[in-house]
Amino acid sequence: MEPLKDFRRLSLNQITTDRWSLRDAAEGCARAGVPWIALWRHKVADAGLSESRRIVRDAGLKVSSLCRGGMFPAATAAERRARMDDNRRAVDEAAELGTDTLVLVCGPAPDRDIAAARAMVDEGIAELAPYARERGVKLGIEPLHPMYAAERSVVNTLAQANEIAERYTPDEVGVVIDVFHVWWDPDLYRQIDRARGRILGFHVSDWIVPTPDMLMGRGMMGDGVIEIRRIREAVAANGYAGPIEVEIFNRAIWDRPGDDVLALMKERYRQHV
Amino acid sequence: MEPLKDFRRLSLNQITTDRWSLRDAAEGCARAGVPWIALWRHKVADAGLSESRRIVRDAGLKVSSLCRGGMFPAATAAERRARMDDNRRAVDEAAELGTDTLVLVCGPAPDRDIAAARAMVDEGIAELAPYARERGVKLGIEPLHPMYAAERSVVNTLAQANEIAERYTPDEVGVVIDVFHVWWDPDLYRQIDRARGRILGFHVSDWIVPTPDMLMGRGMMGDGVIEIRRIREAVAANGYAGPIEVEIFNRAIWDRPGDDVLALMKERYRQHV
Repeated sequence: MEPLKDFRRLSLNQITTDRWSLRDAAEGCARAGVPWIALWRHKVADAGLSESRRIVRDAGLKVSSLCRGGMFPAATAAERRARMDDNRRAVDEAAELGTDTLVLVCGPAPDRDIAAARAMVDEGIAELAPYARERGVKLGIEPLHPMYAAERSVVNTLAQANEIAERYTPDEVGVVIDVFHVWWDPDLYRQIDRARGRILGFHVSDWIVPTPDMLMGRGMMGDGVIEIRRIREAVAANGYAGPIEVEIFNRAIWDRPGDDVLALMKERYRQHV
Repeated sequence: MEPLKDFRRLSLNQITTDRWSLRDAAEGCARAGVPWIALWRHKVADAGLSESRRIVRDAGLKVSSLCRGGMFPAATAAERRARMDDNRRAVDEAAELGTDTLVLVCGPAPDRDIAAARAMVDEGIAELAPYARERGVKLGIEPLHPMYAAERSVVNTLAQANEIAERYTPDEVGVVIDVFHVWWDPDLYRQIDRARGRILGFHVSDWIVPTPDMLMGRGMMGDGVIEIRRIREAVAANGYAGPIEVEIFNRAIWDRPGDDVLALMKERYRQHV
């Protein structure tokens, strides 16, 4: 297995440097020679949409994705409509920011009926996809680790994400593969093959042992047990040559100076991705 | 969906009252009219094997299962052999204690190669099954939640457990279904159907939201989001009529008097199982 030769595909998912504003992150990427950035909507809102676009462009960066749309299931029809309105705004923001990928974190169930919540996800994506397509934005379904099934997303395997995505053309709906969420899956490599032509994003971090926290316990690449390079090569073998986002929720990493995090991230990217 | 009419199938998995010794737990079950108990090997070791058998018999209880065999993957052949020796002892203990089910928690990988660890699990079960069969003990493969893939077991879905079990006759190897580990699985009901005739145990607890802790965050039935009754009925529809173990790792529950826990467990069993 071969390391990546340069940083042309490296993207900072800005949650990795959560204490940085969008401007800090964009300027940090420019200093570090990281050519891509993945933006979060609340950070974009803090900076303002047009200003965010300008900051990123002035820093010479490309936007790998916008995080996030989704959160489709809700207890009432009114609330579900409100979520759809917000999803349309997310599509508009993605288009304005110049990325073709809106990452979908599909949302938890409002009650105990996980099957019904999954049906609401299906419906939400069906409604959103044509709107997104008209604006040149693809919907990237990101399956989340099963430990987030009750609180963040009822789409918990790449098989599920593939099954939904296959109802659409590849320029409408695809999948986003984050090693942290899928590494444990005994069906992983078969599902990566199945996703061929529909892979819209690839995210890296690591699974630390022992895991310090369910949400904030992700590690820097190389600090855990995930076969990151093997997964990256499987994704590449199925045609994905786009940006590779480093997305790490980890308090200890957030507490470090952003420039140090980017330096470490580049080092580990070479060694482990 | 119908509640269970009585407590004839109720079993206390003794980890639920972790502060109790085996004798405390057996006497507690007798007082509460709980007819089954699931034993843990370290508790049996504390009391002594023959004495444990006598205590359980004197309390008029039946043993639903022994926890646990497994932990097959290891870095060296010598260590794997040591694990097999321990597994044979676990089978002997199960036979001595009068249960026909040894629960297998299959173990994590010794390194990053999860596929190799899964192969070690296959080999370990293949070696153990004939030994167990000769002693009238079935091996119950319990898939563990994917969040335990790095630290406890590389068998993380019922599909995986079924696939292994199907290599054997139903009186050799089967599966143990714990709602906490499998509730999120989009393939759950199909895999329960597939497990027909091979279901060796059924464990209940709940998934609390927000989840306070990865290991110690299980809830009492009814305190979380799992559709326990729906899963119980699917298991019943596939022929399982055996004991239903309440297995809860939760510090707050451990801190309560055992008799209170058993009373609450009975109430919730009627309401939610």
